[in-house]
Amino acid sequence: MTIKIDICSDLGEGYGRYELVNDASLMEIISSANIACGFHAGDPRTIQKSVQSAIKTGTGIGAHPGFPDRVGFGRRDMKLSYDEVYTDVLYQIGAVYAFAKANGATLQHVMAHGMLHNMAQFNEVYAEAMTDAVYDFDPNIILVGLPGQILEIAQKKGLKAATVIFADRRYNDDKSLVSRREKHAVITDENEVVEKVLDLVIRKKATSINGKELEIMGDTLLLHGDTHASLSLGKKIKEALLESAVEISPLGKWL
Amino acid sequence: MTIKIDICSDLGEGYGRYELVNDASLMEIISSANIACGFHAGDPRTIQKSVQSAIKTGTGIGAHPGFPDRVGFGRRDMKLSYDEVYTDVLYQIGAVYAFAKANGATLQHVMAHGMLHNMAQFNEVYAEAMTDAVYDFDPNIILVGLPGQILEIAQKKGLKAATVIFADRRYNDDKSLVSRREKHAVITDENEVVEKVLDLVIRKKATSINGKELEIMGDTLLLHGDTHASLSLGKKIKEALLESAVEISPLGKWL
Amino acid sequence: MTIKIDICSDLGEGYGRYELVNDASLMEIISSANIACGFHAGDPRTIQKSVQSAIKTGTGIGAHPGFPDRVGFGRRDMKLSYDEVYTDVLYQIGAVYAFAKANGATLQHVMAHGMLHNMAQFNEVYAEAMTDAVYDFDPNIILVGLPGQILEIAQKKGLKAATVIFADRRYNDDKSLVSRREKHAVITDENEVVEKVLDLVIRKKATSINGKELEIMGDTLLLHGDTHASLSLGKKIKEALLESAVEISPLGKWL
Amino acid sequence: MTIKIDICSDLGEGYGRYELVNDASLMEIISSANIACGFHAGDPRTIQKSVQSAIKTGTGIGAHPGFPDRVGFGRRDMKLSYDEVYTDVLYQIGAVYAFAKANGATLQHVMAHGMLHNMAQFNEVYAEAMTDAVYDFDPNIILVGLPGQILEIAQKKGLKAATVIFADRRYNDDKSLVSRREKHAVITDENEVVEKVLDLVIRKKATSINGKELEIMGDTLLLHGDTHASLSLGKKIKEALLESAVEISPLGKWL
Repeated sequence: MTIKIDICSDLGEGYGRYELVNDASLMEIISSANIACGFHAGDPRTIQKSVQSAIKTGTGIGAHPGFPDRVGFGRRDMKLSYDEVYTDVLYQIGAVYAFAKANGATLQHVMAHGMLHNMAQFNEVYAEAMTDAVYDFDPNIILVGLPGQILEIAQKKGLKAATVIFADRRYNDDKSLVSRREKHAVITDENEVVEKVLDLVIRKKATSINGKELEIMGDTLLLHGDTHASLSLGKKIKEALLESAVEISPLGKWL
Repeated sequence: MTIKIDICSDLGEGYGRYELVNDASLMEIISSANIACGFHAGDPRTIQKSVQSAIKTGTGIGAHPGFPDRVGFGRRDMKLSYDEVYTDVLYQIGAVYAFAKANGATLQHVMAHGMLHNMAQFNEVYAEAMTDAVYDFDPNIILVGLPGQILEIAQKKGLKAATVIFADRRYNDDKSLVSRREKHAVITDENEVVEKVLDLVIRKKATSINGKELEIMGDTLLLHGDTHASLSLGKKIKEALLESAVEISPLGKWL
Repeated sequence: MTIKIDICSDLGEGYGRYELVNDASLMEIISSANIACGFHAGDPRTIQKSVQSAIKTGTGIGAHPGFPDRVGFGRRDMKLSYDEVYTDVLYQIGAVYAFAKANGATLQHVMAHGMLHNMAQFNEVYAEAMTDAVYDFDPNIILVGLPGQILEIAQKKGLKAATVIFADRRYNDDKSLVSRREKHAVITDENEVVEKVLDLVIRKKATSINGKELEIMGDTLLLHGDTHASLSLGKKIKEALLESAVEISPLGKWL
Repeated sequence: MTIKIDICSDLGEGYGRYELVNDASLMEIISSANIACGFHAGDPRTIQKSVQSAIKTGTGIGAHPGFPDRVGFGRRDMKLSYDEVYTDVLYQIGAVYAFAKANGATLQHVMAHGMLHNMAQFNEVYAEAMTDAVYDFDPNIILVGLPGQILEIAQKKGLKAATVIFADRRYNDDKSLVSRREKHAVITDENEVVEKVLDLVIRKKATSINGKELEIMGDTLLLHGDTHASLSLGKKIKEALLESAVEISPLGKWL
């Protein structure tokens, strides 16, 4: 049987005159886009551009909601209530949905950003609020999350849940990501990145930072587009996957 | 034949801890709600509250997009491009739509706020952008506007267009509202307000500030809910209309 | 010897069209004003109004910096670095200082708002950042805080430190305030409030929620201006203090 | 007599994770910095960085206030009242002043950004508000503006007024800049830019886009740092000026 994987990336994370990443070039590599919704990053013009570019390239459209903290890029911990997370996420889903709808497309998935993403992995309140917002808006939307509570909760509710895996990040024993503040959080050697991706995608295996073998059933592989070398690395990873006969396709086509 | 009119009001215009108006009480009087979308006012919690309260009372749900100017409450003139108005309005429609959808309701109408509302009456760029955003999102949504270019453009595109009339504001000869900065912009005598409402709704007539007789075919009557006396005045107006055998009903039910 | 106390209140916490409290009436009661700086609340116009009103009534002018979280009114926990707190506080001090300076006055004190205020009581990073920002801007400005780490650190640096006490809030055993989420956090009986204020101001005593006797040397008494009954309660408290021969005077005049 | 000129540039125009320009490299070329104040761009961390970098390189520190329109980068026309411009500018001056003060430096000048800058050239309300805000804060601060009403008003009030000239922009007959929306607004040929700068600085002459000879007494030359080639062009201009025996020095040292 052919192994299938989605490749996704965070996009549309500019704001007004600011740009973070060459979205157009990245769109050539990925099969799904996590589009910033205007809270941690993004604005109506960048959403429109990202959605139209995704449609042109056959890329799956996803909303990428984050904390209401633009100056902190949604990376700072905020203690929010269930109600605050639920309504903030629902609002952001609607915003991106409007651009998909107006351009004749649909919303394929929702994946949270930054600290909201990390906290929803294990924090039940955040996981419940996130999944309820997606389910209440449209139960056919795929919920993408880190392996943990959020995916279990999503499945219990009847949502299609997809596991995101990372090309260049190391895992802790509990399948959480090693914090960027730690020394070896990010894998910098390109060959090691490619090798680990093949392990993850084909053999469903990763080795934790403590040497523990982990089984991780990934559905979508997150590539970073905000470093200078990311485009070339992304291309390398994609080629290696294609050479290993892995099929790269948007989540919505096969999950 | 029974005369029908919708009564609407701007709602959900609080922000965080701030509140402007007793939305719950107002919801008892009106048949449609113009819900602030988070730009000039409103936030995800206030939208949720307004939408749920509208559903409970059978009130039609409308998005009330405004300029991205919270500190100026969307009342200050901003020179925006077609693209900026289009995407800002589309974004805001999507945000309110999400709450309607998640609560099992639909979006009945869109009516712009403050200076965007005023400018779209005569400015072609703003009127085109507003109506395109509504049409592209969903051509079944009713576009509510001031009598002028925006309604003509909306109808040409195939949108259902509804004319908003004002209970307590005076008109210029061209059917624009007398600016609040002018002395006699607002009618303060309650009996005069009620009398003028009956003229507008039943006889489709208004007298401009210069004494010119105007014909205005109103579909929805805007009540203000942000002054202390507005609730009691609103009730008075509603009673006077009902006594004159006017049927008060949400736009979406009959337009 | 005459007992002296300052009475302060949070002011200028409106935003654009929004108002929280009748600042002008409150200004007649208090001797010092904690003026919101535009992050959790406030904007340039409200700061100007508050500063001018303070000058007219001989009220001491204080900056009231908060977290960059307007929709949460600075009451939500945010994990910020030393650098983030330091620069956010310095920015806000400068903003209020500008209005004091332009109106011919000086900045008497700085007291943090909401969750920043609470966290600086015991969190060393926040306390260091707060006090460094004040000291680096002007070591003659009084730092007002809750009894705890922030005041000790302030004094070690050579800042004048003032302890804020609360008219209507209950204390935990460690002199922190009982969280508003707890049942008996706020004292609602007016006579009890007045009695506790006299205990605090004259006898320097409070009883914790667990019955423990606490010694608290307060310098400034915080009155709330954001509830309907607060003005009348404030007047009652002031009268009771004056009848007990307590002198009410801005911190800067005697500390 | 030696001809003196200041070279300035807009700096600190990043926001959170976003960066627009390599401030550190630019700081090596210029003698004065126009530092964004947190409205159209900038945040407390970028202000701190810009101020500290300016001090290290002996660069004059200026506040660069703009419209409260971050998503539009302060480049969109907003109709504000005198009171709104005055308080917005005063707030922003105070914010940057705080960082200068905390780092042991002073505020040398204020120059408005984008559309506020352009409008203050001829709009009396904006020019009055701008100059009053600077004067009320500190009459020793230099007001930098375009040749027109703002400088005349500034001088009448007793402010030191400095004229900004542009290296790569064309002038209209009335000494206003040709709008960026026009075809030939920006001079793209580097040799022409250098030649025009020497004309402006040494001979005080410019030729308008219609061929009219203009006399412009510039005090500070604005270099753009936000295009890729700007650093190398900036160095070229500086070298050409030094070769022509022009002395480059911060405004505050000689005006």
